[in-house]
Amino acid sequence: MFADAVAGSRLALGRLLTVVERGGPSADVVSDLAQPLTGRAHILGITGAPGAGKSTLVGELVARLVASGCRPAVLAVDPSSPLTGGAILGDRIRMDGAAGSSVDVAAGKAPASQLGHAFIRSMATRGHSGGLAVAVPLAVRLFDAAGYDPVIIETVGVGQVEVDVVGAADTAVVVATPGMGDAVQANKAGLLEVADVFVVNKADRPGASDVRRDLELMLDLGHITGQEAPDGYRPPIVMASALEGTGSGDVLDAVAAHLDYLESTGRRAQRRRHRVRAEVLARMEQAMVRRAVELADGAEGRELLNAAENGELSPTSVSAKLLEQLG
Amino acid sequence: MFADAVAGSRLALGRLLTVVERGGPSADVVSDLAQPLTGRAHILGITGAPGAGKSTLVGELVARLVASGCRPAVLAVDPSSPLTGGAILGDRIRMDGAAGSSVDVAAGKAPASQLGHAFIRSMATRGHSGGLAVAVPLAVRLFDAAGYDPVIIETVGVGQVEVDVVGAADTAVVVATPGMGDAVQANKAGLLEVADVFVVNKADRPGASDVRRDLELMLDLGHITGQEAPDGYRPPIVMASALEGTGSGDVLDAVAAHLDYLESTGRRAQRRRHRVRAEVLARMEQAMVRRAVELADGAEGRELLNAAENGELSPTSVSAKLLEQLG
Repeated sequence: MFADAVAGSRLALGRLLTVVERGGPSADVVSDLAQPLTGRAHILGITGAPGAGKSTLVGELVARLVASGCRPAVLAVDPSSPLTGGAILGDRIRMDGAAGSSVDVAAGKAPASQLGHAFIRSMATRGHSGGLAVAVPLAVRLFDAAGYDPVIIETVGVGQVEVDVVGAADTAVVVATPGMGDAVQANKAGLLEVADVFVVNKADRPGASDVRRDLELMLDLGHITGQEAPDGYRPPIVMASALEGTGSGDVLDAVAAHLDYLESTGRRAQRRRHRVRAEVLARMEQAMVRRAVELADGAEGRELLNAAENGELSPTSVSAKLLEQLG
Repeated sequence: MFADAVAGSRLALGRLLTVVERGGPSADVVSDLAQPLTGRAHILGITGAPGAGKSTLVGELVARLVASGCRPAVLAVDPSSPLTGGAILGDRIRMDGAAGSSVDVAAGKAPASQLGHAFIRSMATRGHSGGLAVAVPLAVRLFDAAGYDPVIIETVGVGQVEVDVVGAADTAVVVATPGMGDAVQANKAGLLEVADVFVVNKADRPGASDVRRDLELMLDLGHITGQEAPDGYRPPIVMASALEGTGSGDVLDAVAAHLDYLESTGRRAQRRRHRVRAEVLARMEQAMVRRAVELADGAEGRELLNAAENGELSPTSVSAKLLEQLG
């Protein structure tokens, strides 16, 4: 199946992505098979607040990339609800329709024929949010090994993990919109600071120039430094409007310029290193958290938790006692 | 200092909160001192998307609570930027002005005299977002021990940790607004599913009734079940408008009704148990992640990461090798 995926079978690739999404030993095998074939794709992260129009923008970018002969892949990350383990209405279904076969035409507002060489996949992460930090790198590796370039990771940009995933890309694009709440609010999750490229989306709406001005001001004041502050890279701000059909070409130009910058300064290797370290730490964390839960829910753990609930022990001493058992 | 805080010294309490915020052994000592004095306060979580008007609503609730003879405490959680370790502009400063002395008058639009018995504290969490899940319960315990009731935790509601912290309260209030993006988007972070009470804020704005209808529909369809689905508790939806000065009394009524429900069904103990377990797991996770980072950044870890970056080893095998060392 792996050979088929690498040879271009969309069906095989879709199945392997499901394996990777589920995690566990099979996912690790797929990841290790893919590893020697990776390192070619430009890894692009796109994030922004809910409702910023990310999916539409990504659809436009994909249409342009395909038209210029690229084979882009999109991994749309859908942070699951902690309770139901999935998005609740149509969003995931819409994106899943594209997995492994045709492509999400609605998102890009382009005819399917134009998007035939793209692969769009929605990924839900179940349970502990650490799952995301483990599964995304595996899926990206798989796309890279299968010859997709660029690989675009789209996240909702609410929460540390989602922002971290995008910040670890080669190029991180942060999408802002008029009416998203002020920029200060947006940066509470550190969203603005991972940006290599800003997009002010829905630029046809009132307030778009205010958003641009706020971002410029924050850049001027050094409140946003970008990830490459030391040698003076300043994230460009691109205005885009799906309504007016503008901006997506400019976004791709800015992204390409950033890649040139990374390569000419040797910073691309730094990004790769950062990404590998983050993945290794995420994997270790996931394994350790699993052991912590096992301990806490085991016989002795339950007894200790009862004591803490009754006020006989403090949570501090309960966790200390359980940690001792980890040796 | 602990005795002073319990006896009512705001100065002592403020200093202990700083100790708790910094974490480490001193924070644990404070927590253990507070432990026997806790269990009285109604723990209230309030969350919602950025710009939902949470701070204003909290200010109104605090003013009402004080006017009715309560001594509420507010812990406003400010998820730090991963890079600068702090909020970037005035927001934190505004809340910090209230800590330990007078109170954030602007937020509540009420004269300071009316708020004299409240304690409002902003908490920044640095570095790994796990810090939040550890520090918040300690601070809540301290407020509870010092006789504050209710203890209100306000979070931005972007990200799993922030949502989890609020979901672990006795009563979780989720604030929605017109124009926050549709409800489906909002639930991507599981925000809606932890709600015991919904508030549709800025109800004077166009679209407020649509938000209410969407929420009712999602409740009808079972897409939001609330945390107490089995015995049929249905989260009420309260309309509120700071502009028109309406809703904050209704919010307090709904919150009180939920507390009655918890107590009459024995579910309050369940919440407490859930909270203790979450705190213990968060503490264990924090300790274990620290060890993982030490390992990865140690001599052998750096060598393994180099090999992974060069493609000689896969991240899977690097993390497996490092985990072996943890025993």
